[in-house]
Amino acid sequence: MSEKVTVGDYLLDRLAEAGIEHLFGVPGDYNLQFLDHVIDHPQIAWVGCANELNAAYAADGYARCRRAGALLTTFGVGELSAINGTAGSYAEYVPVIHVVGAPPLSSQQRGEWLHHSLGDGDFGHFARMAQEVTVAQAHLTVENAPAEIDRVISTVLHERRPGYLLLPSDVAAAPLAARPLPLAPRQAACSPQAVAAFAAAADALLSRAGSVAVLADFLADRFGVGEALNQWLAGCGLPHSTLLLGKSVLNEQNPGFIGTYAGAASDEQVRRTLEGADVVITIGVKFTDTITAGFSHQLPPEKTLALHPFDAQAGTQRFSQVPMAGALAALQQVVAAHLPRWRCGPVTPPLLPPSDSGRLDQPAFWQAMQAFLRPGDILLAEQGTACFGAAALTLPEGCRMLVQPLWGSIGYTLPAAFGAQIAQQDRRVVLLIGDGSAQLTIQELGSMIRDGLKPLIFILNNQGYTVERAIHGPRQRYNDIAQWYWTQLPQALGCGDDQVLALRAADPVQLHAALDQVADAGKLALVEVMLPKMDLPDLLQAVTQAIEQRNAGKSASSA
Amino acid sequence: MSEKVTVGDYLLDRLAEAGIEHLFGVPGDYNLQFLDHVIDHPQIAWVGCANELNAAYAADGYARCRRAGALLTTFGVGELSAINGTAGSYAEYVPVIHVVGAPPLSSQQRGEWLHHSLGDGDFGHFARMAQEVTVAQAHLTVENAPAEIDRVISTVLHERRPGYLLLPSDVAAAPLAARPLPLAPRQAACSPQAVAAFAAAADALLSRAGSVAVLADFLADRFGVGEALNQWLAGCGLPHSTLLLGKSVLNEQNPGFIGTYAGAASDEQVRRTLEGADVVITIGVKFTDTITAGFSHQLPPEKTLALHPFDAQAGTQRFSQVPMAGALAALQQVVAAHLPRWRCGPVTPPLLPPSDSGRLDQPAFWQAMQAFLRPGDILLAEQGTACFGAAALTLPEGCRMLVQPLWGSIGYTLPAAFGAQIAQQDRRVVLLIGDGSAQLTIQELGSMIRDGLKPLIFILNNQGYTVERAIHGPRQRYNDIAQWYWTQLPQALGCGDDQVLALRAADPVQLHAALDQVADAGKLALVEVMLPKMDLPDLLQAVTQAIEQRNAGKSASSA
Repeated sequence: MSEKVTVGDYLLDRLAEAGIEHLFGVPGDYNLQFLDHVIDHPQIAWVGCANELNAAYAADGYARCRRAGALLTTFGVGELSAINGTAGSYAEYVPVIHVVGAPPLSSQQRGEWLHHSLGDGDFGHFARMAQEVTVAQAHLTVENAPAEIDRVISTVLHERRPGYLLLPSDVAAAPLAARPLPLAPRQAACSPQAVAAFAAAADALLSRAGSVAVLADFLADRFGVGEALNQWLAGCGLPHSTLLLGKSVLNEQNPGFIGTYAGAASDEQVRRTLEGADVVITIGVKFTDTITAGFSHQLPPEKTLALHPFDAQAGTQRFSQVPMAGALAALQQVVAAHLPRWRCGPVTPPLLPPSDSGRLDQPAFWQAMQAFLRPGDILLAEQGTACFGAAALTLPEGCRMLVQPLWGSIGYTLPAAFGAQIAQQDRRVVLLIGDGSAQLTIQELGSMIRDGLKPLIFILNNQGYTVERAIHGPRQRYNDIAQWYWTQLPQALGCGDDQVLALRAADPVQLHAALDQVADAGKLALVEVMLPKMDLPDLLQAVTQAIEQRNAGKSASSA
Repeated sequence: MSEKVTVGDYLLDRLAEAGIEHLFGVPGDYNLQFLDHVIDHPQIAWVGCANELNAAYAADGYARCRRAGALLTTFGVGELSAINGTAGSYAEYVPVIHVVGAPPLSSQQRGEWLHHSLGDGDFGHFARMAQEVTVAQAHLTVENAPAEIDRVISTVLHERRPGYLLLPSDVAAAPLAARPLPLAPRQAACSPQAVAAFAAAADALLSRAGSVAVLADFLADRFGVGEALNQWLAGCGLPHSTLLLGKSVLNEQNPGFIGTYAGAASDEQVRRTLEGADVVITIGVKFTDTITAGFSHQLPPEKTLALHPFDAQAGTQRFSQVPMAGALAALQQVVAAHLPRWRCGPVTPPLLPPSDSGRLDQPAFWQAMQAFLRPGDILLAEQGTACFGAAALTLPEGCRMLVQPLWGSIGYTLPAAFGAQIAQQDRRVVLLIGDGSAQLTIQELGSMIRDGLKPLIFILNNQGYTVERAIHGPRQRYNDIAQWYWTQLPQALGCGDDQVLALRAADPVQLHAALDQVADAGKLALVEVMLPKMDLPDLLQAVTQAIEQRNAGKSASSA
């Protein structure tokens, strides 16, 4: 690279410092010159996507497998196409930096009626929209660019949520005097007094407890305490569980892992262990509707020690300036003193429902999938039968699972699998997605093919929106979709015959043969799995009943 | 239908009154029960789409061919996926009513952490975003529903721009006492004194003019004066032109139609006739960048009579409360008195560039397309080589063209063609779209196939984003895309062999054979037209040069 540094180069250097090696997006009129600098950057690779929503999903999937992700779109059309993906990153705490290539500042200042604007001379509409779903935003100028880029990226990394940078084409190209010094990371405010007070309150609660259990969820992963947590739990043996949103943050092969908690829809052993404990330690948990079967969880605050990203609770007392990592370290010491009093033996996680129909149904599929998964796999399970079925799996060690049950945007996992595979090129990526969902974002299969990636894709074909049928309108035609010939798609989207395994499994024998064939083939695989239209995993049955009741204005009796 | 009327039924009755017979969208958890009422409604049919952005585009295409359109999505994920489509409708004045099925009011009031929300108890984020791209919004409750539904729909119809209705699931299901009286249409404020003053000012300007020309654009179509305008122009013979955004609002077979105006990039006769006229009458014109080759038009306000939707200008004087239809009627009378003084002979619209290379290139394609089009066709030309090439066509009588050169969201026309064909099931729909653009929204081809529609689709395969190559980075890999086997796609997306003509044309002979084959086959057709990677229609060459210059911060010298 030349010594002449532009604002665009500065931004790219900062992205690289944040651990970002790939920039996802779609070219557009207002980001093309900046793209030249992307192409030339020594540490950042450009990953073109078929459309912007898919690019946002891919950047989100990438960020979930790395420290952060980044997305580049053009102004207006591009950024608004992507904004649902950004909102999902915001809801589920995924740090994605969205760079929007904008019209030159000079044109903005003149209020010109430009294409990709609303034709009213107001260039602030879309930034105002982005404010609702990002934690930091900046309108970059040549003067403010270094400071504002640093502020937005630091905030994104600190709060683990998306940020927005509006980069006019002339600003991107403007020269800067020099490359920057390294970015100083933002530290969470941590008060030693508050941590000590929390520890004392925790000690008081725990000293009265005859039984204790741990519930960890997605924010433990997002705020970087997953490893410390797993080491602790492996050592202390306290019974522990996760919710669906954070599934895979805990090592499910730990002897103390009891299974996935889902409120009243939990396996009975899981429910009793958690709800029956005198104290429950929650780490990075948010009780949202679908993962608690409609707020049916029974974990009253008085008997909870709750670690949040930047504060903590002991019973109903809240301690601010107690960040998660500090709280966890303090809590470990407190727990150690009481541990001998509590029963912490190994437990057997719940078994999957038995498969005895002889048909290819949900139980048969999940039994097969349990056997198929390997340590280190990255498993993406789409909102719907896939993720609620996968909730009942016991994951192999180091198997990472990506789900989106809070935002719940169907179609998300297919491009997210693209992003995850780009992030972790040596790991096996396994995607489970329904036919209804895959239709929303199918074009990204073409990008996987173009880039020679080899994810293993299972299309769960149950002829439409089964999850919606379960909630309402099981036989209504609005839950039907266009019927595609799935196994022909890879070829139509550019795949050579020898590049893909495209298979269809309509019975258990075919499914096992397909799994054997794709497991180590080292090829992209698309397996169409034919499943009964109205067949649901048990958990999804409970969750959809709760949703249907609540939509009619009735809340769960136990909420 | 039963006599028991719900809020949802009331809304559907109002949509039907607005001339809407089809509701586009995607089912979701919070709109399913309302969908039962859609299915049961005697006048409204449900049209499920593969994703929400496509549904928004389809509703926009439908609305451009009817009086209005409507879109149904779920809360959060659905509405944000669609919002880029709504923004396009806003920018280009297309009346689409977006109904969002929302969580029950009771849950919203409790601030529950529901799926499809950001998990923060704030259910106002997305409505605030919608405010930026809609002219009216309402949060419906049982109490306000009738009044608010009427207000939003009336405003949408009046201002010809999208509106937003947030419909909680419990509100949709709530009973209403009775079906409503007919909706009273909103009338534009019209002051007879102001109209007379405008007519007098116009008369003064025209009485000094030795030559007059007319330039009409998209707002003439949107505000319903197209028919009156064409009748007048056919009678009076004044030379007239349109811009690309409103192309097809004028009957291009009129003897006075001189061709499409594009500022400095216009055909010389068109430019001289307009820019050389002593007075230009503009009707429903907005001078935006791409349709004027970067604001290179030379039509100073002092010699312009401008009719806007709700006011009018004579030179630099502005007259409010002079709506377009009233201004046009008044102006016709004024013009009639002066007409004998002006030269109003028939003109020959500019010819297409000759095709003499013997290869299948842009000139050869457009010559073939000119011969292929028929009166009454609906032509959709995607932003890119397609729409800037189509600008040079002389359209047959009654041929309607849909383009989106202000918002310019690539991928738009494919779902819009779906919507247009649903709106006008007996007309031939011809879609011209590049390979790069078609990838963004390809799944809607599956919906066309599912519904047995028969549009004629031409994929202009120039191996990537040719329009972006022309602006910047002609050989950069960010302008490459995944290479698909286009002719295999209809089958993969569910088409039976006998239901489709999937053809590939790599030379002029093959193109003509393909056109002959598809013209009257009465089948869905997909013709992949192989075009040179760097070949551009002349107009696009001029436009992209202007954009590249302006992105670097230099404005057009003539602006």
